[in-house]
Amino acid sequence: MARVSQAHLDARRRQILDGAARCFARNGFHATSMQDVLRESDLSAGAVYRYFASKDEIVAAIAGEAFAVIGSAFADAAAAVPPPTPDVLLGRVLTAVFERASPAGDRQALACLIIQVWTETLRNPTLAATLDEGWRAMRAAWAGLVESYRATGLMPPGPDADHVARTLIATAQGFIAQQALFGDADPSVVQDGLRALTGMRTGAAQETP
Amino acid sequence: MARVSQAHLDARRRQILDGAARCFARNGFHATSMQDVLRESDLSAGAVYRYFASKDEIVAAIAGEAFAVIGSAFADAAAAVPPPTPDVLLGRVLTAVFERASPAGDRQALACLIIQVWTETLRNPTLAATLDEGWRAMRAAWAGLVESYRATGLMPPGPDADHVARTLIATAQGFIAQQALFGDADPSVVQDGLRALTGMRTGAAQETP
Repeated sequence: MARVSQAHLDARRRQILDGAARCFARNGFHATSMQDVLRESDLSAGAVYRYFASKDEIVAAIAGEAFAVIGSAFADAAAAVPPPTPDVLLGRVLTAVFERASPAGDRQALACLIIQVWTETLRNPTLAATLDEGWRAMRAAWAGLVESYRATGLMPPGPDADHVARTLIATAQGFIAQQALFGDADPSVVQDGLRALTGMRTGAAQETP
Repeated sequence: MARVSQAHLDARRRQILDGAARCFARNGFHATSMQDVLRESDLSAGAVYRYFASKDEIVAAIAGEAFAVIGSAFADAAAAVPPPTPDVLLGRVLTAVFERASPAGDRQALACLIIQVWTETLRNPTLAATLDEGWRAMRAAWAGLVESYRATGLMPPGPDADHVARTLIATAQGFIAQQALFGDADPSVVQDGLRALTGMRTGAAQETP
């Protein structure tokens, strides 16, 4: 009984989040009302409000799921020894995010939702807390990867691993912004770019006297 | 006479843009009305509407100025032969943007305004056109820099220069998003990160059999 009930609760929650994501993608976060979410997810107000007290809570839940997708894609990719180079890793993470975190598999809609969430975060403490938590976890995980690069000799000792982690995360974030603003941001673009950057001869030049 | 008049027009225009930028930074783009802009810039409606028909036009003008700052910082930095490495260049461009494009020299306020502009662009064709123009110019300029890296042997031949350009621009964009969302994004962070990435031994490993 308890198990069936939990499955039912999960399915309802999923139905609400997917409906809300479709509304946000279509009309933007601000122009979407809880009424729109009810209509789109085909549920009564009573059913929806049992799960989420407000639109803010819904969007915080969507953001939390996106972080979970990023976290697991990153963990899967980074588990290899030696770890994949930054270009391969970032390509895989972005592909996973675009494919799995998007309700309708629509890369553009997801990217637009993400930059709307960023803006919303400036005024919304619930969302800010969710983002902050995801941000800390992501930074720590990526800094761990940088340590692996160093342990395997792929990256010489040098700048703070956290700074390298933030730079890689920035590249992913900026690429999502490019998809939202200008479209056509296939993960292979950033993969190419990082391959060229990590293949530069600056490091080699420093090592050869 | 004409010259004095132009200086006067420019000063008025500046007064409006600075007042609007302060309002946007304080209350966000959406919550700012043209009335707020009038009050903040201490001008009459007649004076303001002579320059800008709407809030959208004001924010498009602010975005256009930001692109001009980025363009000139980039041109200054990239003019050196050999060109500065990506870490140095991106550090300089971000420093210039944060210092010069911000009305009150407030990095956080500027970063918040930028991500608000991104979101606004999704619904605003005037702003989308301004951003698209700046985006094309930036991509072309940065791709030219990649060609210089190749001409001077700093970067081996390989992926499309435009993809490398987009990756570097993404890193800058993402870093601005980090400043807006989490604060504390000193350009030295991304400078450290890019130095570590361009110093990786992936390229060197490929060259040494």
